[in-house]
Amino acid sequence: MTGYPTSIGTSDESTIHLLGQDLAADLMGQVGFGELAFWLVAMRRPTTSELRVFESVLVALADHGLTPSAIAARLTLTGAPESVQGALAAGLLGGGSRYLGVTEDAGGFLAAALAEHTGGGAELPTSDDGWDDLALAAVRAAQAAGRRVPGLGHPVHKNGDPRTPVLIRIADEEGLRGPHLRLFEAVGRVHPELLGRTLPLNGAGVCGAALCDLGFTPEILRGFALLARTAGLVGHLAEEMRRPLGPAIYQQVDRAAEYEPPPGG
Amino acid sequence: MTGYPTSIGTSDESTIHLLGQDLAADLMGQVGFGELAFWLVAMRRPTTSELRVFESVLVALADHGLTPSAIAARLTLTGAPESVQGALAAGLLGGGSRYLGVTEDAGGFLAAALAEHTGGGAELPTSDDGWDDLALAAVRAAQAAGRRVPGLGHPVHKNGDPRTPVLIRIADEEGLRGPHLRLFEAVGRVHPELLGRTLPLNGAGVCGAALCDLGFTPEILRGFALLARTAGLVGHLAEEMRRPLGPAIYQQVDRAAEYEPPPGG
Amino acid sequence: MTGYPTSIGTSDESTIHLLGQDLAADLMGQVGFGELAFWLVAMRRPTTSELRVFESVLVALADHGLTPSAIAARLTLTGAPESVQGALAAGLLGGGSRYLGVTEDAGGFLAAALAEHTGGGAELPTSDDGWDDLALAAVRAAQAAGRRVPGLGHPVHKNGDPRTPVLIRIADEEGLRGPHLRLFEAVGRVHPELLGRTLPLNGAGVCGAALCDLGFTPEILRGFALLARTAGLVGHLAEEMRRPLGPAIYQQVDRAAEYEPPPGG
Amino acid sequence: MTGYPTSIGTSDESTIHLLGQDLAADLMGQVGFGELAFWLVAMRRPTTSELRVFESVLVALADHGLTPSAIAARLTLTGAPESVQGALAAGLLGGGSRYLGVTEDAGGFLAAALAEHTGGGAELPTSDDGWDDLALAAVRAAQAAGRRVPGLGHPVHKNGDPRTPVLIRIADEEGLRGPHLRLFEAVGRVHPELLGRTLPLNGAGVCGAALCDLGFTPEILRGFALLARTAGLVGHLAEEMRRPLGPAIYQQVDRAAEYEPPPGG
Repeated sequence: MTGYPTSIGTSDESTIHLLGQDLAADLMGQVGFGELAFWLVAMRRPTTSELRVFESVLVALADHGLTPSAIAARLTLTGAPESVQGALAAGLLGGGSRYLGVTEDAGGFLAAALAEHTGGGAELPTSDDGWDDLALAAVRAAQAAGRRVPGLGHPVHKNGDPRTPVLIRIADEEGLRGPHLRLFEAVGRVHPELLGRTLPLNGAGVCGAALCDLGFTPEILRGFALLARTAGLVGHLAEEMRRPLGPAIYQQVDRAAEYEPPPGG
Repeated sequence: MTGYPTSIGTSDESTIHLLGQDLAADLMGQVGFGELAFWLVAMRRPTTSELRVFESVLVALADHGLTPSAIAARLTLTGAPESVQGALAAGLLGGGSRYLGVTEDAGGFLAAALAEHTGGGAELPTSDDGWDDLALAAVRAAQAAGRRVPGLGHPVHKNGDPRTPVLIRIADEEGLRGPHLRLFEAVGRVHPELLGRTLPLNGAGVCGAALCDLGFTPEILRGFALLARTAGLVGHLAEEMRRPLGPAIYQQVDRAAEYEPPPGG
Repeated sequence: MTGYPTSIGTSDESTIHLLGQDLAADLMGQVGFGELAFWLVAMRRPTTSELRVFESVLVALADHGLTPSAIAARLTLTGAPESVQGALAAGLLGGGSRYLGVTEDAGGFLAAALAEHTGGGAELPTSDDGWDDLALAAVRAAQAAGRRVPGLGHPVHKNGDPRTPVLIRIADEEGLRGPHLRLFEAVGRVHPELLGRTLPLNGAGVCGAALCDLGFTPEILRGFALLARTAGLVGHLAEEMRRPLGPAIYQQVDRAAEYEPPPGG
Repeated sequence: MTGYPTSIGTSDESTIHLLGQDLAADLMGQVGFGELAFWLVAMRRPTTSELRVFESVLVALADHGLTPSAIAARLTLTGAPESVQGALAAGLLGGGSRYLGVTEDAGGFLAAALAEHTGGGAELPTSDDGWDDLALAAVRAAQAAGRRVPGLGHPVHKNGDPRTPVLIRIADEEGLRGPHLRLFEAVGRVHPELLGRTLPLNGAGVCGAALCDLGFTPEILRGFALLARTAGLVGHLAEEMRRPLGPAIYQQVDRAAEYEPPPGG
């Protein structure tokens, strides 16, 4: 008989335990939802400072208007109005490498650069110049491998993503402007010389850096970005129920279709 | 040219607006994630009391151990480890009529009973006896139509769901024990006589009642249940990354398969 | 130890069995894909006639242009190009009650009417007049219950869905124009008098009738509609890879967004 | 106004066109479902030989018993029995890099090796020895880059996947044993010396090779694997409706859960 160890939760006839706590007696009414989400992954309760940074990240990533994800969720509700879970799932499925993946990729890029530096026995830098050196090495390595530096550039916010300086300031206020954020900031300073153009540090990237400074591993970062986006998508679906856009979007696309029979068809 | 009105969000080169607020300047670091989730659907900021009840609901529904949803999410990660969004979506897709639907169904049942009562010009009851009369009528109508009364019974918590009294107490403390919760409590008192057995008021049901008392329409309630469950599923996926259960579950099921070729096959 | 009986398939070190057959020796190269799909659900191999009707249904339902499903799949690929399974899943999730559900609903409506008739001991009609009487009773019962008659009407094919007469002809040629199709045809003849307007028998509905005449239960009909649609969606995704529409659709929708901050926001 | 070019399909009041054909007049009853699926991606009708190989691939990949995908689909139906599309989507979402991805990866590996060889102006080999040289170079390059050679090995069929020789024979019979299959066979001959152990050429890999020999690009191969699996999953869902396994699987896993509260929790 195989046993399945889990530290998330369990329940018996009269109690539900979550994370070692009695859900009804110890958590409900006493723990916020963002706090619980942190705890469920970190397996420990966040400090007040950690929670403020963490919720800032979730707020920053919750929505970005009528994105492909939001449109897909609304169109799915048009076809299957009885299945809110299907429309939500459809919206989340667009959260892959090109959109929400940036958070994970930026976190992974920074964590790897730090690991390589300290793995060789080196101390972390203590000055901006030191961070710049480390950033130069990391960006050069990415260039040499033909890889993009994640977290740079934004299709809309070409002169600067408004979320980036605010999240850095909040982390600083809370004493959580750690090595990942500092390295990310240094990437922002050094990349123009190497890449030949100046790109803004984007919001998805700074969120990845901040989550890594909270102690999370890069591979779970996309999970938090998806949690944040779930709130935005539920907002879109509620709006779609009140005032549907799906049928008009479908009609507009369908009418603009230009049928080109395949050659020989 | 069709226009697509939306009140969720928009962005331009230098700002992101969400719900009429400047995301970076007014929301990040100042609004909690649960608060934002409420706001995105209600289109207004919750009061402190509303937020405490709302987050209690999200905490109550976040996880219930190795449910079919959690198992499906973990097995999906086994097959597609590079696609966290796919595993999360698979887990949410089990949030249909039988599990998370109870929240929506209970809310809808209570809202309809209240609408029918007040739609005929009647005032809401002011005493337990009055609520009991209303509950009797609603349960009888469901019986007559051959429909189940949603929110009653639980496969594990046979003698009482621990979340139910706690959520009612929290709502009471916050002055938000409104007509849906009162009617739900009355259903708990009157159903044994009508149904011939005593069933506990379950947690999913009381959450539906509380969300309706916060002013939400029943059709969006499943969306909140899914948001809550997303946090639990991200926790399961993070645990699955640290210590996989999926391959062992697969192996156990596969080994227990008993192949019965179809007749004539 | 629980055992899990299944008649689909099993495998050991040197063989794979499917439906009681040796997959490599008996099925590959000898059984078509549509044939296998029928077999996997019916648990028996179709006759040549059954297969022709069945594949006609799958062909009829495979695609209907840039539908909400196809658009959602393409937009999802835009966000997660590395996850073809996510884009396909997003497309299928729109196959709910409003679109693909018609096939299932029509099959269920016809099967229930036939069951009620024969359950009372009556013989099936042998003339058009007899079928018309049965159809009149079924449509009247739906009207009395305030329910729509599924399979009637089409937003584009207002004067007749071209798939309907062709599928009836094919079933007739194969000796498979059974009671569900005959009743569906009779609904087409009698509904104008009862409903006050003439609606075409739509393709999704006639496919539901034909599948029921092949012996399938209504609850699995949506599964076949989804299988058919999968082929269409794979076609759309392949086209999206060759010549993307997703980014342009996103841009067009996003530009047409009209931001209306919530009152007080 | 943006136009959206598409060659899949279109419809007007009286006709539906698919791939330049009149769906009702030219396709229904005359084209098989597998044939249509080929056509939808290739934008041309397959020859009889191509179709036989193509359907052999779909049959080979349709099912592999109670896989993680099939279990996830069944568990999802347990929670959301009204949403067949959700259960199917959940099953498909497990078709990622670790399972169905092998077909795509093998096709991509072989196509890249061939492209590199012929891109340098070299002719394709005309003897087994020539193919072996090419395979040696490709396997060595993968080794040097620290990458696995896709299509080798199988957790169950350790001494040989029964689908592999059969698909090669069918392709040979149809005159479609092309360069991708020949290179794949050569990989089977040469890898033991390089890798130090003998691994079977697996079914997913040989299917990828055969699909590439049919002219498909590697990036769409996963789409065909998912189409094949859809038929298997519909079979599993139909069986789940007749005789549910989901609740028992859930119960077995839940009972075997061993709750370990987090340290300090």
